[in-house]
Amino acid sequence: MRSFNYDIPTKVYFGEGKIKYLPELIHTFGTKVLLTYGGGSIKRNGIYDEVQELLKDCEIIELSGIDPNPRIETVREGARLCKEHDIDVILAVGGGSTIDCSKVIAAAAKYDGDAWDLVMDGRLITDALPLVDILTLSATGTEMNTNGVITNFDVKLKKGTASYHTYPYASILDPTYTYTVPANQTSAGTADIMSHTLENYFQEEDNAFITDGLSETILRACIKYLPMALENPESYEARSNLMWASTMALNGLTSMGKGGGWTTHPIEHYLSAYYDITHAEGLAILTPRWMKYILSDKTVDRFVKYAQNVWNIEDSGDKFKMAEEAIEKTYQFFVDNGLPMTLPEVGIDSDEFFMEMAKGTEERLSRAYVPLNADDVVEILNRCMTEGYN
Amino acid sequence: MRSFNYDIPTKVYFGEGKIKYLPELIHTFGTKVLLTYGGGSIKRNGIYDEVQELLKDCEIIELSGIDPNPRIETVREGARLCKEHDIDVILAVGGGSTIDCSKVIAAAAKYDGDAWDLVMDGRLITDALPLVDILTLSATGTEMNTNGVITNFDVKLKKGTASYHTYPYASILDPTYTYTVPANQTSAGTADIMSHTLENYFQEEDNAFITDGLSETILRACIKYLPMALENPESYEARSNLMWASTMALNGLTSMGKGGGWTTHPIEHYLSAYYDITHAEGLAILTPRWMKYILSDKTVDRFVKYAQNVWNIEDSGDKFKMAEEAIEKTYQFFVDNGLPMTLPEVGIDSDEFFMEMAKGTEERLSRAYVPLNADDVVEILNRCMTEGYN
Repeated sequence: MRSFNYDIPTKVYFGEGKIKYLPELIHTFGTKVLLTYGGGSIKRNGIYDEVQELLKDCEIIELSGIDPNPRIETVREGARLCKEHDIDVILAVGGGSTIDCSKVIAAAAKYDGDAWDLVMDGRLITDALPLVDILTLSATGTEMNTNGVITNFDVKLKKGTASYHTYPYASILDPTYTYTVPANQTSAGTADIMSHTLENYFQEEDNAFITDGLSETILRACIKYLPMALENPESYEARSNLMWASTMALNGLTSMGKGGGWTTHPIEHYLSAYYDITHAEGLAILTPRWMKYILSDKTVDRFVKYAQNVWNIEDSGDKFKMAEEAIEKTYQFFVDNGLPMTLPEVGIDSDEFFMEMAKGTEERLSRAYVPLNADDVVEILNRCMTEGYN
Repeated sequence: MRSFNYDIPTKVYFGEGKIKYLPELIHTFGTKVLLTYGGGSIKRNGIYDEVQELLKDCEIIELSGIDPNPRIETVREGARLCKEHDIDVILAVGGGSTIDCSKVIAAAAKYDGDAWDLVMDGRLITDALPLVDILTLSATGTEMNTNGVITNFDVKLKKGTASYHTYPYASILDPTYTYTVPANQTSAGTADIMSHTLENYFQEEDNAFITDGLSETILRACIKYLPMALENPESYEARSNLMWASTMALNGLTSMGKGGGWTTHPIEHYLSAYYDITHAEGLAILTPRWMKYILSDKTVDRFVKYAQNVWNIEDSGDKFKMAEEAIEKTYQFFVDNGLPMTLPEVGIDSDEFFMEMAKGTEERLSRAYVPLNADDVVEILNRCMTEGYN
C-alpha cells in the first residue's frame, strides 16, 4: 500500500429534508450570498423556491445559466459579482458543472489577476470564499473534493484545477432532489461515477485491499442501482445509493494507498473542449475501448480481479477470456442503459482533430497506468467511431 | 438508506516515515507539549527517541504508564498537568487506551469540574486542547473518531464519552510502528476491528449498499491479513492493511446510512470494569455466542449475506446452515489466531456478577439490533464459560 495523506474538511448532510441545515450553514459566514445555478430545473422542481424561503433574511445575488462544461467567462463574471457585492458565501445549487464553476469563482473572488491563471496553476489559489452546495445530480463527486474543471474555448482547453481552499465547506445531499433527473443524465452521471472509480482501480498498486474493495463495491452499486433508477425514477433506495456512490467515488477514498495517472479523463477533456460533448458520455464511449487497448500479460490479472469481484464472472482458468468478458459486460451495461457508445452519436463524425487532441494528452498519459502516446490515443479514438469495443 | 451527517476533521498521515510531519503539526499550536504514553514499548522500539529528537525545541511534559482500560485517575492527573504547565497541545503515542485517555485529558484540561463528569455526559465537553497522535496498535479506530472510553473502578463503570471537540487534530499512522506488536495483541486488535465492523453490519437497514460493502471488505481484510501478520510480523502489506482497516472500521463510514445500538461492546464494558480483562479478548469471546443467540427467521438473511460476502460460503439453499457455518468460521478464526475463547481463560471463572452486569447493559441493549434483556445477557455469558459457541 502506498503512503498517503487524508484530509477532507467538507461536511456532508445526507438524506431527505437535509436542506433544513441550510440557514445555519449560510449564517456561519454571513448574509450576502451568491446563488449559482444552471438552467431552470431548480425552478421547476421547487428547490429554488425552498432556498429563497429558507434564506429570506439574506441578500441573494444570482448567477444563473452555468453551462455544462462551464466556461471561464462565467467564472470571471461570478468573481466580479462577489467583489462588487462583497459576498460572504457562495451557494451552488446543481450538479458538477455548477459546483465546479462555483469553486473557481470562490477562488477568483479572492484573487487579483485573471481567473484563468487559477485554472492553469492551482497553486496560485491561496484563499477562497466559503462554498456551500446543494447537489442535484449524482455524478462528478465534486461535492466532497477540491476539483473544478473549467473550459476555455478560446484556447480549446478544458482543464481541472484544485486547492485545499476549494473544498466545499458543506454539501447537502438529498437523494429526492435527483428524482426529476432525466434518464439520459442519470445514465451519464452513473457512467461518470464508474469512470472515476475505474481510473483509480486500474493502477499498479495491488495491495491496497480496502481501497480496491471499496471501488468494487461502488461499481457494483452502480450496476445494481442505475437500472432501478431508470425503471423507477423515484426509488429512494436507488437514488440514495447512486448519490453516495458519486461522493465516495471521488472524495479520495478510492485512491488511498494507490495513486497514479488517469487515462480516459484526459482524453475526454479534449473531446469536450473541441466539441462541447457531455463529459460522461465521452467517458462511457472511451472506457471499454481503453480497457481493450491496454489488456496485456502485464494488466490481465487486474482485469481478472475486476471480472470476478465486479461482474461475478466465474474463474474459468482462461484469464484473457475472463478479462474480455468483463470488458464486454462494461460495454453492454452502458448500451443497455441508453448511453451513446460511438463518437458519431455525440456529433463527432470526423477524425480531423484526433492527432491534435492526442498530442495534447501525451504529457499526462505518460504517467497513466499503461502509458500511452499520441498514436495510441488516435487508435483508441478511431475505435470509438464505430460500434463494438475492439 | 438512513439519513446521516458526515463531518470528520481529523487529518491522517499514513505510511512509513510519516512522523516527519510531527514538528509541523505540533508547531501549529505551540511548543508546550504533554506527551502521553503507556508502558515502555515506545522506548524499546525507538519511537520515543524519534519524538524527542523531532521536538527538541519543545518543552515536553510526560504522562506515562497509561493502562489498558485507562482510569479516570489518570485523566485527572493529565488534566492537572495541562493546567499547571499551560500545555498547548497533547501528543499521544500508543494504542487505543493512550489515545482515548488523552482525548478526555484534552477535554478535562478545559473544564473546571471533575473529569468524570465529562465521561458521564459528553455534552459537557465544550472545548478541548488539540490532540495529535502516533498510533502504535491497529485496533480501536480511536485515531479518527471522537470516542474515549474510560474506566472508574470505584463505581465499576467503563464508559465511553464523545464530543466533536475530541476528534484528534491529526493522526500519524506508520504501519512499521506495529511490527513489534506481539502476536496476542495483534490478534486482539484485529478482533476489535472486526467487532466494530460487525456491530455496524448487523443492523436492520438493508439498503446501505456501499456501507455494507465497505464493512465486508474490512472483514475480509482482517481475515486475510491477521494470519499474514502473525506469520511475518514485519510484513508491510499485512500491517498497513490492518492499520487502515482499524481506521476505516470506526471513523463513521461503516455506519453511514445504517445506525442502531451495539451489543457486544456494552456487555464487554462490564466485563472489563469488573475484571479488567483485555477489551478485544472479551469481544472475541462474546461475538460468536451473541451471533448464535440472535440467529432467527428475522435475522437469518443478514447472516446469509455475511456468510456469502465475507466467508465465501456457497449458496446451498439452506439459509440457517449457511448462517451457522459463518458463525462457526468466525469462532474458528479467533481460535486459529490464538485468541482465548472462554471467560475462564481470561480469569473469569465464576458467574457471581453476571446478573449484576447484565442489568447494567439493559438500557443500551434495548436499542440493539436484536434487543436483549438481562436474562438474555446472562445466558450469553453462561455460554462463554465453556468452549464452543452454542
